[in-house]
Amino acid sequence: MATVTGKLVAVVVAVVVTVLCFVTGLFIGWFFLDHPASSTSEGSDSNMTHYPPSSASSSSFGSLGQGHVTEPDPTVSARLIQEVQASNIEQYLRVLSERPHLAGTEGDERTVDYVEQELKKMGYDVTLAPYDVLLSYPAKQHFNKVTMLDGRRRNAIFTSDVGATTGSDWDSEVTPPYCMYCPSGKVQGKLIYANYGRAQDFRTLEKLKVDVNKAIVIMRYGKISRGKKVREAAKRGGKAVVLFNDPADVNINMTYNVYPATWWLPEDDVEHGNFRTSWGDPATPGRAAVDGAYRIPEKQMDLPSVPCHPVSYRDARILLQNLEGEKAPEEWQGQLGFEYHVGSNTPGALPVEVDVKNNLETRRVYNVLATLPGATEPDRVVLVGNHRDAIAYGALDPGSGTAVMLEVARAFMALYTQGWRPRRTVMFCSWAAEEFGVIGSTEWVEERRRWLGDRAVAYLNLDTVLQGNYSFDVSATPSLQAAVIRAAGKVTDPHQPDKTVLDVWRTRITDDRSPGLPWIRRPVSMTDFQPFIHLVGVPVTHSRYSFVEQDGSLIYPVRNYPLYHTVYDTFPLAAMMDPDLAVSTAVAAIMAELTRDLADSPILPLVPRDFATDIATHMDRALQSSPQELHHHIYYLKAAINDFLTASTTLQSHIDSLELHTVDPFQVRRINDKLMLYEREFVDHQRGQHLILSHGSNSNPSLDEQTMSDMIQAFRAATHTLST
Amino acid sequence: MATVTGKLVAVVVAVVVTVLCFVTGLFIGWFFLDHPASSTSEGSDSNMTHYPPSSASSSSFGSLGQGHVTEPDPTVSARLIQEVQASNIEQYLRVLSERPHLAGTEGDERTVDYVEQELKKMGYDVTLAPYDVLLSYPAKQHFNKVTMLDGRRRNAIFTSDVGATTGSDWDSEVTPPYCMYCPSGKVQGKLIYANYGRAQDFRTLEKLKVDVNKAIVIMRYGKISRGKKVREAAKRGGKAVVLFNDPADVNINMTYNVYPATWWLPEDDVEHGNFRTSWGDPATPGRAAVDGAYRIPEKQMDLPSVPCHPVSYRDARILLQNLEGEKAPEEWQGQLGFEYHVGSNTPGALPVEVDVKNNLETRRVYNVLATLPGATEPDRVVLVGNHRDAIAYGALDPGSGTAVMLEVARAFMALYTQGWRPRRTVMFCSWAAEEFGVIGSTEWVEERRRWLGDRAVAYLNLDTVLQGNYSFDVSATPSLQAAVIRAAGKVTDPHQPDKTVLDVWRTRITDDRSPGLPWIRRPVSMTDFQPFIHLVGVPVTHSRYSFVEQDGSLIYPVRNYPLYHTVYDTFPLAAMMDPDLAVSTAVAAIMAELTRDLADSPILPLVPRDFATDIATHMDRALQSSPQELHHHIYYLKAAINDFLTASTTLQSHIDSLELHTVDPFQVRRINDKLMLYEREFVDHQRGQHLILSHGSNSNPSLDEQTMSDMIQAFRAATHTLST
Repeated sequence: MATVTGKLVAVVVAVVVTVLCFVTGLFIGWFFLDHPASSTSEGSDSNMTHYPPSSASSSSFGSLGQGHVTEPDPTVSARLIQEVQASNIEQYLRVLSERPHLAGTEGDERTVDYVEQELKKMGYDVTLAPYDVLLSYPAKQHFNKVTMLDGRRRNAIFTSDVGATTGSDWDSEVTPPYCMYCPSGKVQGKLIYANYGRAQDFRTLEKLKVDVNKAIVIMRYGKISRGKKVREAAKRGGKAVVLFNDPADVNINMTYNVYPATWWLPEDDVEHGNFRTSWGDPATPGRAAVDGAYRIPEKQMDLPSVPCHPVSYRDARILLQNLEGEKAPEEWQGQLGFEYHVGSNTPGALPVEVDVKNNLETRRVYNVLATLPGATEPDRVVLVGNHRDAIAYGALDPGSGTAVMLEVARAFMALYTQGWRPRRTVMFCSWAAEEFGVIGSTEWVEERRRWLGDRAVAYLNLDTVLQGNYSFDVSATPSLQAAVIRAAGKVTDPHQPDKTVLDVWRTRITDDRSPGLPWIRRPVSMTDFQPFIHLVGVPVTHSRYSFVEQDGSLIYPVRNYPLYHTVYDTFPLAAMMDPDLAVSTAVAAIMAELTRDLADSPILPLVPRDFATDIATHMDRALQSSPQELHHHIYYLKAAINDFLTASTTLQSHIDSLELHTVDPFQVRRINDKLMLYEREFVDHQRGQHLILSHGSNSNPSLDEQTMSDMIQAFRAATHTLST
Repeated sequence: MATVTGKLVAVVVAVVVTVLCFVTGLFIGWFFLDHPASSTSEGSDSNMTHYPPSSASSSSFGSLGQGHVTEPDPTVSARLIQEVQASNIEQYLRVLSERPHLAGTEGDERTVDYVEQELKKMGYDVTLAPYDVLLSYPAKQHFNKVTMLDGRRRNAIFTSDVGATTGSDWDSEVTPPYCMYCPSGKVQGKLIYANYGRAQDFRTLEKLKVDVNKAIVIMRYGKISRGKKVREAAKRGGKAVVLFNDPADVNINMTYNVYPATWWLPEDDVEHGNFRTSWGDPATPGRAAVDGAYRIPEKQMDLPSVPCHPVSYRDARILLQNLEGEKAPEEWQGQLGFEYHVGSNTPGALPVEVDVKNNLETRRVYNVLATLPGATEPDRVVLVGNHRDAIAYGALDPGSGTAVMLEVARAFMALYTQGWRPRRTVMFCSWAAEEFGVIGSTEWVEERRRWLGDRAVAYLNLDTVLQGNYSFDVSATPSLQAAVIRAAGKVTDPHQPDKTVLDVWRTRITDDRSPGLPWIRRPVSMTDFQPFIHLVGVPVTHSRYSFVEQDGSLIYPVRNYPLYHTVYDTFPLAAMMDPDLAVSTAVAAIMAELTRDLADSPILPLVPRDFATDIATHMDRALQSSPQELHHHIYYLKAAINDFLTASTTLQSHIDSLELHTVDPFQVRRINDKLMLYEREFVDHQRGQHLILSHGSNSNPSLDEQTMSDMIQAFRAATHTLST
């Protein structure tokens, strides 16, 4: 019996153990194992978050692992940051800036090949997106110029120069300075000085009784876009336009210590660029310039209407010195070393001739697109992009950005080779023809508009990363502020190894409204993030270093680096501004980490509450300056903004309280779709414009009834998306 | 040693068994168990599919169960179909058609309350979506009329009647016949007969040298919309318009065996309705008419431009009998019992006066929305809808549809109460003010445009379910054809109990191109599916019975039921056309099953391949009639269509070969998003128009360069969505 009992006990125990093991297996299988995919969980990533702690990487995410809601590998962040190498950035930059590469030229095609080959070498799936777009070039056999004539309009007293050269073997490929898209023409008239060419400047001229009609208007670059200056002049009857950079803006106090010794603009170099006020291919507004696209007739295109030409400040000096008429107002005076006058239309004044021959030409340009497919959610995409074309050698604009982007791509692939797989798809985009009006990116976004609307998580723009070297400087959609601040908090400062980029940034570009945080600008400049914002409503960042620094202190808050859009934007300039490529490397590290965060966090690191808060503050100011007879609409708009604020806060609380191991994949997708899609509601598809992000953070646009009505509906719709 | 060996063996065996059990448990847990959610798997649903076998319910779906990709309960289909009851439909229909309920009137508000209460009683979460929209009514103290004057234009020889009555106590609430949105005016002129008022009819008049300028134009209803008739007449200088239904269209051969004995139109009854050519609230085009919406000034609205009035054919007889001028062409002759003449502008002809006083009034109307939240994917929505407002009593239009929809909603809730949970959200929508130009649904779609774009799986429209009783008849987006055919194959025919609805349908409305399948029309009529198609690109169906049947044979293919839009559209008419509500019950059963299929199938039962095939055939015809100088564009368009066809076939093969138990939830969502989203690419947001479904299946629109260009890009974009 004892033996039988013993055997019975043994059998019972064996059965119980077996059943327990089965149940345990069942439980583990059900609860902890990944379904067939990629990533592995290796503990909490709470040590990865520096500042500020974000919901997306908070410790509540430490124990997920059910279904495909897998925790990202916490080591990837540091490994990516370490992977980024200055030497690679330098090598990319050298090659990219070796030869002039204006869009549509042979030099441009060479960069297409180079970027394509580099990305392929890394291991990427690379495609080219070609577009046949309308570009503008100076006529080959003609010499665009501004001439000062004698009183009889027969002989040239003075003729403007063709522009500076660098001494490179490739100088022969530099396109001489010209005003893109301005029409051809040989126009004579009296010269009038109009300061920066703003509407207020022309009003000043009116007060001074200076008639712009039939005159040739000379203006200095700055304050507003080139295209707007010409539009303002042409609107008032100006027959032609001459542009120059005043030393007051690009060579303060005429130190004459200029390039190549420093980064100040020499007297013989000429800024030039695009003169349209709209963006994208001028022949296919609203459509992609692909095979079979309808192209509008030239007379329907939005192009500048009068001949224009840019000159050096050496040439501008001669033109301005001969101006008669009243003394220009105090704030119109520049630093050419004499008293500026506004000019006059009297018969005695010396006439000036602008002689321009430009051609519109349809040329094929290429975006280069490299894709790293996501392991779990390949249909969600994080995009990193920068334009590739340049005014001439383009070491800073855009080489410094492209070099950084290539290094980010290389770092991503290095980790991929080591076995890491990002949750979502990452795309690196090298855009064409940005200098002609954001054309390459716009055509692609037009082609992929709804696809991007359905899938794009964020677009991270680079451009002139070395716009300066004083401080990291970011423009961004407010919902991405926390993520970019967090990334900057993980990267060592290029100049102070005991600090992070964020530590320095928050002391150099401060935000009065949020003490302790850096000020993040609204994304309003004219670069490749525009189509993502205005045609789709994708959250964007635009990252760079800005402001010139010398011996550790800020010496001048220039609107841009003084050699911007000139032939002297070369590799030596980059080496001067960023000696060991330390700044570029820091930006690459931040971009890599930000991209990783967006591509790999189970819950997207987008914060609609930050968007709502920023917008509420901004709109409050705008509404104060709005006509009071619209009080009915103001009431509804305020209520709609308030509801949006509440909905975004509620969603944030929900996300903060989530324990991901209790959540199924469809719930995660539902939350992420809210985070990704609510901003799409702010795009006005008929006008191709974001209703909120069209204005800078400090502008107070007066809102009319229609705009308010559209905003009311957009805020309500965004609230509905966040709430349902 | 033997014992030790034996024990060792026992231990090894025990360990092996234990490990095996653990691994088995692990495997089962990983592979077969649901994560915490709703539905249960009870075997294959292959027996549920009748015809044709669809991918979404093929046997390859029999073994799913991983993650949240759960198989739907296979018993639900039959239970839903059985749940639908004729007695309920009858009760709903009686109440709905008891009292006139023109949009914006007291009777309309009563139906809002009724539908809301019924849905709440069932257990639904019900919300009202209110809109303040611009409606049009005849002035209260005025009697709109057409008068025939004596030669001196002093005395009325004849004055049109006010329209028929039903004898109901509620007749006093019937709005007299009028032309919605036509302006007020008292206009005199010579009467000209213009047949159906098509452009070709006016060209015929021109050939006959009959001048329409300053004349009053009398036209019969039919062939084109009311609004287009008026536009054609006004374009040619017509001062006013008179409309009537000719017996040739509504009382063949003047049998005089009319309502209430039959469904033919009596001589005293008058059709009326909306006369605009655009849809949605006229004051807020492109925007929802919510609080704070911008409303355009009246002069910018797209409204008919001349006074109009509808008369009975008894009154039309008198007007037409007095017409002089040439004999009207043979095909213009109607069945009023005399030879029709075209009229003349000679001084001798008797003048006619149209005297109309209509008011535009902003009134609040309500959509009633009932929601059944999805258990697994609440952010994916299947919508079922029908308008609620009527010209008068509206038993058929729209009562027969609303009664069916309410019964479908009731059946869904009955199964929900029994524990069933649909995978996706289902919404039942009772739209307002459709008769004034599809206003209620349009305003809601405008308000929820992007939300619907992100989430709407399909919109299933009802309207006049009893447009006839001869055959089930469907208009649908081609991608929904298979699903609706499959649903009709599961429901018993209302007249032949040994057959399914599909069995009869496919013999009565045949498709030459697909022998054995019923012909499914393009969704082009003016009803509530319009905004879903044209503003969002949601696949739609529109289901009804059509064609009058007597003693089992088709007696007349009327364009609509003859009492359409008259006061005689009453419950007795419904009872006459559908004696035991058998037809209505069959439609309700089909709608319930179709809704279930869309809401509950793991892979959406949308077939882009069917869309592609239908479109390819259609476009091929259209391209044949397109200008040959566009051969460049035709080439690209054909290539784009071909690529789209290939992509849709590839995706279908992928779906057909799927074994769901090997697929994770994100992969299922990715496939479903492709199926749901590709059609959105065909919406032209600037024009508010679907590029493909704007034309009927048999029309061959000549395509211009811009349209082709847009189509090329849409097909390519749809291909990209299906492929990536």
